[in-house]
Amino acid sequence: MSGMDHPPHFSDERPYPLQHHLGFVLTDWSEDYCRLELPLEAFLMNRQGIPHGGVYATLADTAMGYAGCFAPKGAPPRWAMTLNLSVNYLAQCKGDLLIATANLTGGGRKTFFANASISDNLSTKIASATGVFRYRSNPP
Amino acid sequence: MSGMDHPPHFSDERPYPLQHHLGFVLTDWSEDYCRLELPLEAFLMNRQGIPHGGVYATLADTAMGYAGCFAPKGAPPRWAMTLNLSVNYLAQCKGDLLIATANLTGGGRKTFFANASISDNLSTKIASATGVFRYRSNPP
Amino acid sequence: MSGMDHPPHFSDERPYPLQHHLGFVLTDWSEDYCRLELPLEAFLMNRQGIPHGGVYATLADTAMGYAGCFAPKGAPPRWAMTLNLSVNYLAQCKGDLLIATANLTGGGRKTFFANASISDNLSTKIASATGVFRYRSNPP
Amino acid sequence: MSGMDHPPHFSDERPYPLQHHLGFVLTDWSEDYCRLELPLEAFLMNRQGIPHGGVYATLADTAMGYAGCFAPKGAPPRWAMTLNLSVNYLAQCKGDLLIATANLTGGGRKTFFANASISDNLSTKIASATGVFRYRSNPP
Repeated sequence: MSGMDHPPHFSDERPYPLQHHLGFVLTDWSEDYCRLELPLEAFLMNRQGIPHGGVYATLADTAMGYAGCFAPKGAPPRWAMTLNLSVNYLAQCKGDLLIATANLTGGGRKTFFANASISDNLSTKIASATGVFRYRSNPP
Repeated sequence: MSGMDHPPHFSDERPYPLQHHLGFVLTDWSEDYCRLELPLEAFLMNRQGIPHGGVYATLADTAMGYAGCFAPKGAPPRWAMTLNLSVNYLAQCKGDLLIATANLTGGGRKTFFANASISDNLSTKIASATGVFRYRSNPP
Repeated sequence: MSGMDHPPHFSDERPYPLQHHLGFVLTDWSEDYCRLELPLEAFLMNRQGIPHGGVYATLADTAMGYAGCFAPKGAPPRWAMTLNLSVNYLAQCKGDLLIATANLTGGGRKTFFANASISDNLSTKIASATGVFRYRSNPP
Repeated sequence: MSGMDHPPHFSDERPYPLQHHLGFVLTDWSEDYCRLELPLEAFLMNRQGIPHGGVYATLADTAMGYAGCFAPKGAPPRWAMTLNLSVNYLAQCKGDLLIATANLTGGGRKTFFANASISDNLSTKIASATGVFRYRSNPP
């Protein structure tokens, strides 16, 4: 995790519990866009010794949620809840770092849509995902 | 996790790394069926203080994969890879234990389909999921 | 289509254009539930000579939308728009009549979730689907 | 349909039954890519007077299937079956012609993945979709 775990300059938010537990890091966040990175540690592996499919789903869900909820430094946070998450598993990971990027693809004030792509540091395209989200008016 | 972490009587398998890291436990496994349980710990929470959507996706993926790969005690293990995972998030968790059940719904020698339902210990129906999987001929 | 094309007793609605064009018929509709039937005609076939996957998707989308929008005879109609539709294709059709059933699985005033199952008149389970929908406050 | 219904120069195939019944036309097809167009006729409308969601699902399924099965003029046709189709409905159609484009995104000899985007002739981005397909070794 090393130095990546420092609060990124583009957000005041601290890593939340699951983020800290899995180790993914927000490495870019702007209007309609998000990028996350996750160094592959032994505790992320499944019974076949490769990263668990749920890890990719978690990164995709997270990156897409962020893509629709960007708030610049100092602005109030925005919140969304996932309605649907669909993930396609394209290929197996060959590297030791996962990179998830997500873009907003549509929606309005109540609902938004996004897609995500997950690759590794060897440019293997591992998974793609789409999501449907609803904005929350109040923090939970 | 307490006593639930003991090797269940219906499988010789030990918890694998992500399973151990998140804490879910196989509480039933038979032909075409699987049930998992996950006690909610603080490290599973998202930035809104509720269980991360990726946790539900992970449980659904896991339970459906097991549902298609049952091997009785002593038999050689079977392996599958997820092709598609789709999760619908129906309601928020109110309890402190997640229960995922999955059933095989179709397929054949090469491919299988399953669905999963995730509820909590207060019978809140939290998420439903479907999955498409491909059997692997060789262990990875 | 024969006698099935008469307005069903459980609704005042007339078949709408695509419904008429494809030939599916509402054969049951009640709170949180819908059943459709579609006799297989030659014009529904794909380049492989079997029913086009889009036909199943259309039936699933329709049945799930109805399941969330039941209005008894005489009550004002309710409207919804699909946010996500996910269909799994389990097996090939062997019969000559498709039967789609859908149930509401969750949601509230703004959003609803449903699943659907499509079989033929020989009880072949052909496809399953899930959907996320949003209610529309005003007719389009 | 007018002149678009002529056999396109990039394929020897004739429109198949549902294609003819709905009126969509293959307007581009090459390795890993397909484009379809569908003029909006009255018979494609739903009970709200707008194009039925199943129409978009049909176009997406078709375009993605073609994207994975390109065979140049004179080569033997290739066949695939859909395993999963997931469609997100982003916005309502404003034009009178639908345009679906699809790209192969991954896979191998047995399975392939694709995504599709559907817009209208006013550049409204109406729907996006993903699909998982399996190649068929023999014609059905």
